Amino acid sequence: MHTSTALLTDRYELTMIDAALQAGTAHRRSVFELFARRLSGARRYGVVAGTGRFLEALERFRFGDDELRFLSENRIVSDAAVDWLADYRFSGDIWGYPEGEVFFPGSPLVTVESSFAEGVLLETLALSIFNYDCAVATAASRMSHAAHGKPLAEMGSRRTGEHSAVSAARAAYIAGFSSTSNLEAGRRYGIPTMGTAAHSFTLLHDSEREAFEAQVAALGTGTTLLVDTFDIEQGVRTAIDVAGTGLGAVRIDSGDLPVVVARVRALLDELGAQETRITVTNDLDEHTVAALASSPVDSFGVGTSVVTGSGTPAMGMVYKLVAHEDADGEWVSVAKKSADKASVGGRKSVRRLYNDQGVARAEVCLLGDGPGGESEGEDLGGRSREVLVPLVSAGETQSGHVGVEGIAAAKERHRRAVAELPPIAMSLTRGDPAIPTHYR
Amino acid sequence: MHTSTALLTDRYELTMIDAALQAGTAHRRSVFELFARRLSGARRYGVVAGTGRFLEALERFRFGDDELRFLSENRIVSDAAVDWLADYRFSGDIWGYPEGEVFFPGSPLVTVESSFAEGVLLETLALSIFNYDCAVATAASRMSHAAHGKPLAEMGSRRTGEHSAVSAARAAYIAGFSSTSNLEAGRRYGIPTMGTAAHSFTLLHDSEREAFEAQVAALGTGTTLLVDTFDIEQGVRTAIDVAGTGLGAVRIDSGDLPVVVARVRALLDELGAQETRITVTNDLDEHTVAALASSPVDSFGVGTSVVTGSGTPAMGMVYKLVAHEDADGEWVSVAKKSADKASVGGRKSVRRLYNDQGVARAEVCLLGDGPGGESEGEDLGGRSREVLVPLVSAGETQSGHVGVEGIAAAKERHRRAVAELPPIAMSLTRGDPAIPTHYR
Repeated sequence: MHTSTALLTDRYELTMIDAALQAGTAHRRSVFELFARRLSGARRYGVVAGTGRFLEALERFRFGDDELRFLSENRIVSDAAVDWLADYRFSGDIWGYPEGEVFFPGSPLVTVESSFAEGVLLETLALSIFNYDCAVATAASRMSHAAHGKPLAEMGSRRTGEHSAVSAARAAYIAGFSSTSNLEAGRRYGIPTMGTAAHSFTLLHDSEREAFEAQVAALGTGTTLLVDTFDIEQGVRTAIDVAGTGLGAVRIDSGDLPVVVARVRALLDELGAQETRITVTNDLDEHTVAALASSPVDSFGVGTSVVTGSGTPAMGMVYKLVAHEDADGEWVSVAKKSADKASVGGRKSVRRLYNDQGVARAEVCLLGDGPGGESEGEDLGGRSREVLVPLVSAGETQSGHVGVEGIAAAKERHRRAVAELPPIAMSLTRGDPAIPTHYR
Repeated sequence: MHTSTALLTDRYELTMIDAALQAGTAHRRSVFELFARRLSGARRYGVVAGTGRFLEALERFRFGDDELRFLSENRIVSDAAVDWLADYRFSGDIWGYPEGEVFFPGSPLVTVESSFAEGVLLETLALSIFNYDCAVATAASRMSHAAHGKPLAEMGSRRTGEHSAVSAARAAYIAGFSSTSNLEAGRRYGIPTMGTAAHSFTLLHDSEREAFEAQVAALGTGTTLLVDTFDIEQGVRTAIDVAGTGLGAVRIDSGDLPVVVARVRALLDELGAQETRITVTNDLDEHTVAALASSPVDSFGVGTSVVTGSGTPAMGMVYKLVAHEDADGEWVSVAKKSADKASVGGRKSVRRLYNDQGVARAEVCLLGDGPGGESEGEDLGGRSREVLVPLVSAGETQSGHVGVEGIAAAKERHRRAVAELPPIAMSLTRGDPAIPTHYR
């Protein structure tokens, strides 16, 4: 395990720098944008997640002796490039959508202004983080809405790479989940952790009753007992018999949930355990969560679907050069011309427009001198707000975007941003973005 | 970044241990199996990947002061459990399918025999690794077959979490890919790295010609020039004009590939560049690779689809208690009874059966005393071989399964295992497993 993030990148970033250094073009001021051409999965909106992680990874983006030795010994770049990399420290500016914000096709989640070499080097790392974290957060946001305010726990660590699991817990929490089963996410990001018990715990003991007794003895009657290892009805009866009517919750992990949940609720009530909650965890996604809206479920545990973006495991983000200075120091807007992969060149600032009721109605990308430039404050007709914020200024990470503080701010920002969207945004069907993106 | 892997797990593993310690059941000898109930995505076979990574992660599965402090301060487990965790070091036995081997529904990829507490603790970490790595390797193996021997490069780092990217490069390499764009995978696992250039490199320069000149000057004529930033035909002409007919390769990243590739090949030949290769990279998966079988493509770069398991981002692995000693020290086979999640209890050894032509015809799980036991060598009628190998014995990792050596062995093992499968295994359509799994 290496703490440097510098090699979490594609080889071609470094060979491009090598070639540009030799050609004298590496130091041209350049603007890169990270954006999605479309919302993968035909989502109605996307959720920005990964910003804080990206800024933390940027701090550790340094080529130490180990990294440089690998590059030299394998002749990946020339000695001149190795020397340049040894001194690498991002010194440019980064603007972006703040974490937790919603986004749409073309939204520049990150705008990097620096030399070409400094900016191109961050392409793969930035995309890895945002493609994964945004996919998880976007799925999680839909699930949060589908749950109608009932708490959701992220329990998918086992269904994604062991480090992605920690990122997924963070992204889901920002997008509305209440807790995670992942301990590292608890330690690293201060996210509340939760857990019940596995079927193996029941099976280990000589009877379900002995297993429940062991769990209640250790964790108290407020614990959650897993009641479906053998027969659910008997499991519920045993659970209340062992823990009493003050049992915290029962968990159901199999069966036709709407039917099973209704029966378990009726049985708990009949046994006098009106306060005992029901949590369900059987391969849920936003659609099955929504289908349980009228069931007496108290909380949901979601695994596979949230950590794999519910059918969209990567958000389709790209990182593109949109402007640079030419040989004469003049700014040039650029874009690839291929018909199927067109993008809009040029520096942009972004404004979100609202109607008179405060509902978002459009995302406007203003082509011009970019964020913080002259277009700021320009009258676009009606209420609007600037979306982009400075994330890094002259190499210095701006406060409030990283660590536990950044996560709390992102979670609250997400809640507000979603509340401003038009009702169609909450549709779980595939369709067009909830608001259009215009370019001016 | 913490080098301990001990918190890459779900909270409930630790609370179960806490309860089992208090109940006196934590030390019961137990057997856990990691297996897939079915082949996700209706694949014809699965590919084992992640074994070496799991064994390496197991070596670092230690609760240090930082981990223990987090557990204590957050009252996740009792002081007695904290003390037990402080001394944790896996001391049991692990058998498994060796990495690179193919597997089928029910195949015990990993069999852990230890105390309940020692074994249950590894559930989440093992599943995270195998669910992701096997999904990637299984997709990669299909792509390798579809490419008919032409080299495939893994270029999907940007489409999965930044650490999963390194795992994906490793899994794809084992399953038949030739190289990766990921530098950390090159450093950590010795996998050959490759790279071309991005559109941003062309756009940075004042013309495509200047960009090509810069790249050829730095990287030599053997490099690969990206020719589709503007007009592909003009791009190819410029590339040969700049590099000469000795140009290594051109890369095409957009357009209707069968048509474009044929035109580019004809143009290269017309320009005298018969030896210049063509590499394509436009959102490929096993189906588009197969569709290019008769096109003059020389190599493929695959991104999103391989690192996201081509529609199956998690392999559907579970980790289940299948046997344990009871209060009297007698072995008991156990299995959850829920109809939709049934599994087969008991210790197993596994034999692969062949027909007279050496083609695999069945996977047989022998219920009994487990791997290395008396059923070894039993006559099953016709040719067969043992599949399980010892991975960890009394806590000691067996040699040959980790590091660069383990990867090389796994890659060769995969090649041999796939070659033994019946022809239906190579079908890209959804369907039944290529061979059945029997239990005796």
